[in-house]
Amino acid sequence: MRAIGIGLIGWGTVGCGVIQTLRDNAEAIENRLGIPLKLLKVADLDLDRPRPVDVPRELLTTRVEDIMNDPDIHIVVELMGGLGAAKTFIKQALENKKYVVTANKALLAHDGNELFEVARRNGRSIGFEASVGGGIPIIKSLREGLAGNRIDTLFGILNGTANYILTRMTEGGLSFGDALREAQAKGYAEADPALDIEGTDTAHKLAIASAISFGTPIQFDSVYTEGISGIAPLDVQFGEEFGYCLKLLAIARNTDGRIEMRVHPTFIPRDHILAGVSGAYNAVHIHGNSVGNIMLYGMGAGMLPTGSAVVADLMDIARDILANTPERIAPLAFLPERLSLIPIKPISDISTCYYFRFSAVDRPGVLSKISGILGANEISISAVIQKGRQTEGSVPIVMVTHEAVEANVRKALKEIDELNVVLAPTQTIRIENQETTHRD
Amino acid sequence: MRAIGIGLIGWGTVGCGVIQTLRDNAEAIENRLGIPLKLLKVADLDLDRPRPVDVPRELLTTRVEDIMNDPDIHIVVELMGGLGAAKTFIKQALENKKYVVTANKALLAHDGNELFEVARRNGRSIGFEASVGGGIPIIKSLREGLAGNRIDTLFGILNGTANYILTRMTEGGLSFGDALREAQAKGYAEADPALDIEGTDTAHKLAIASAISFGTPIQFDSVYTEGISGIAPLDVQFGEEFGYCLKLLAIARNTDGRIEMRVHPTFIPRDHILAGVSGAYNAVHIHGNSVGNIMLYGMGAGMLPTGSAVVADLMDIARDILANTPERIAPLAFLPERLSLIPIKPISDISTCYYFRFSAVDRPGVLSKISGILGANEISISAVIQKGRQTEGSVPIVMVTHEAVEANVRKALKEIDELNVVLAPTQTIRIENQETTHRD
Repeated sequence: MRAIGIGLIGWGTVGCGVIQTLRDNAEAIENRLGIPLKLLKVADLDLDRPRPVDVPRELLTTRVEDIMNDPDIHIVVELMGGLGAAKTFIKQALENKKYVVTANKALLAHDGNELFEVARRNGRSIGFEASVGGGIPIIKSLREGLAGNRIDTLFGILNGTANYILTRMTEGGLSFGDALREAQAKGYAEADPALDIEGTDTAHKLAIASAISFGTPIQFDSVYTEGISGIAPLDVQFGEEFGYCLKLLAIARNTDGRIEMRVHPTFIPRDHILAGVSGAYNAVHIHGNSVGNIMLYGMGAGMLPTGSAVVADLMDIARDILANTPERIAPLAFLPERLSLIPIKPISDISTCYYFRFSAVDRPGVLSKISGILGANEISISAVIQKGRQTEGSVPIVMVTHEAVEANVRKALKEIDELNVVLAPTQTIRIENQETTHRD
Repeated sequence: MRAIGIGLIGWGTVGCGVIQTLRDNAEAIENRLGIPLKLLKVADLDLDRPRPVDVPRELLTTRVEDIMNDPDIHIVVELMGGLGAAKTFIKQALENKKYVVTANKALLAHDGNELFEVARRNGRSIGFEASVGGGIPIIKSLREGLAGNRIDTLFGILNGTANYILTRMTEGGLSFGDALREAQAKGYAEADPALDIEGTDTAHKLAIASAISFGTPIQFDSVYTEGISGIAPLDVQFGEEFGYCLKLLAIARNTDGRIEMRVHPTFIPRDHILAGVSGAYNAVHIHGNSVGNIMLYGMGAGMLPTGSAVVADLMDIARDILANTPERIAPLAFLPERLSLIPIKPISDISTCYYFRFSAVDRPGVLSKISGILGANEISISAVIQKGRQTEGSVPIVMVTHEAVEANVRKALKEIDELNVVLAPTQTIRIENQETTHRD
């Protein structure tokens, strides 16, 4: 074999990053791999719109079959995104005995288990480093670098757009809306930013990373997800007064034979290493029983960082092609027959600390009423801020609790929000701190 | 094959970490690998001293030959440390067609090139993830996860003892001596801490990581090294006033066809992600031309974290044994025949920003004299702090410069230190900031 042939489906931003990385770093890649990676075809329905990276006309095609049927193409890179067609093409490539690399976290979150099985039946594999954390080698670290560990917890900042917005709300005092518009103007957020700000994109990535960490199939439907659109600058500021920094955090935890998987705005201590992950950066913080705490940090999106991850997968697969070892590493780290369907802990069962901002009438006895209901539901308060009189009729009463059970919290808040001295639904933000992270 | 047999030389702290990880995580390891890793022998000259982890008597031996000659042992783990005997045993193991895993950074820094060649001649490999950054998968990330990149720069906090001392000097205001004694009391520093505090251990690791990053043989003798024992709390405090945090930083940079490799106390901006790496933690910050900035963070030493890295290597090698692919990844990332002896930039040629603390007589005209000499040597000042009169006869005049060439700095300081108004040698600390890092 004189070269590993690559066919690329989807000439978009990430496609351009792959093409540029293969081109600019061809020498370094061949010096490491011993054989060149050769881009043979690029398929896209629209070949005429301007792109940041050009492709020689003779490599371009609008017909995916030109890739599927080319015997010199060993690896098909799916970068078109979306579910239906992307899934069809990946299956077709595997059935044509081609290896696959994809950055498509939505597809893997929904159909990864099925696609890995198709790959296995065909004696091929799917590389998906780019699907979680962009350029950061998270999948490789979980599957190989930390393979000697039992992994207990994983905290991730896995969406650069959401992190950019929260960073600007924290550092610039912006409202959510202004921060979002700024992110859009800078090209971080899509015109329709729902997947980013509602937490769905983060949940896709968490489902994949959790499966690899704990040895369970991907269980995307069980990820509890809340976005950041309801966050007020006031909450960011009160959090700071308690020593916290606000992040859209992906949390996975394996305890008592059950898995927590949840994505929501989360206060973390300002001196936690994850609090320093600002702007469009991503990071994943992992605790393994041997390695202790590990954090991996870098750009979670963007043309070239994602291209870097795709090319790393191409190189790994090239080595597998050369050695004929398609099943060297199991896709979800654990051998497929050793994955077990670990039950998911429902959100009502989780136990964590909470931040509450009550909108209460400024009248004697209100604080006592609220704290009475909390106490009756076994929710113990660790700190309170109540600041002078407001002109608008309600005052924010802000509390931080010790660890409490979510079901109790929901019950208490329902009672509290029904009080006639409480004028608006209580803002609730979960907290990860020493009390909640050091408990295993 | 029903198990991969492991023989361990050196039943010390890291050895105990490996034994405990193999034991505690046997199920997770086998679920990922499909075959057990079986500890068959542990060799040590002293079998009687108490250890944190026990070994069944029948596995223990004082004779290394029992490991070398056991046909069921596929991988020899060298954890005795030191140069002479460790090197002999590693060569012997390779010549007996056994794979090797080691955490011995001093040995690899000195003799790695030779040992990798011995491995190659024997169709075997050496795993050394544990030699740089303890449990952090740095080697794997550089060799595989970032393999599609040209790596430009690498900054490392690679010695937990030194970082602990500097953290305590910064956060607790301790003197170097008090912080060192505290580190020793906590078990972070050896009775003879010279390797840690003089930067030699960091330099060992930098030499290994640089070779892998840039595709050059290990060139330990060319690493410029300064330790932290000359740092005064005063310097830490002045640095803070300029917005800096002090770290013992390992710096490698590939520019203009020459490599910089240097280890010295370094001021970095307080809001840089590396500034949050405190206590005994390590981190490496890498810039690749596709991936951009990446940081990997975790425990760089200790029984279990180092054990985690050794076991990851054992699992990689087990896969290579099962597939008979001993040369799957080249030890220094680039194929041996494609390594090139990239010239090293001498310290006099480097260009960076500087912090100076002059001990000057408190007399009119002194500042003008000092800044005149700096100007004449093309050193441009970006900020100055000179604080009121001191009773001891000299005042500290503190300056931060724009980027300047080290040779000019040395020439200027020689002149300045010879002035009769300057009472003590000038304290010099290099700075890495935007000006110096964003230049390529």
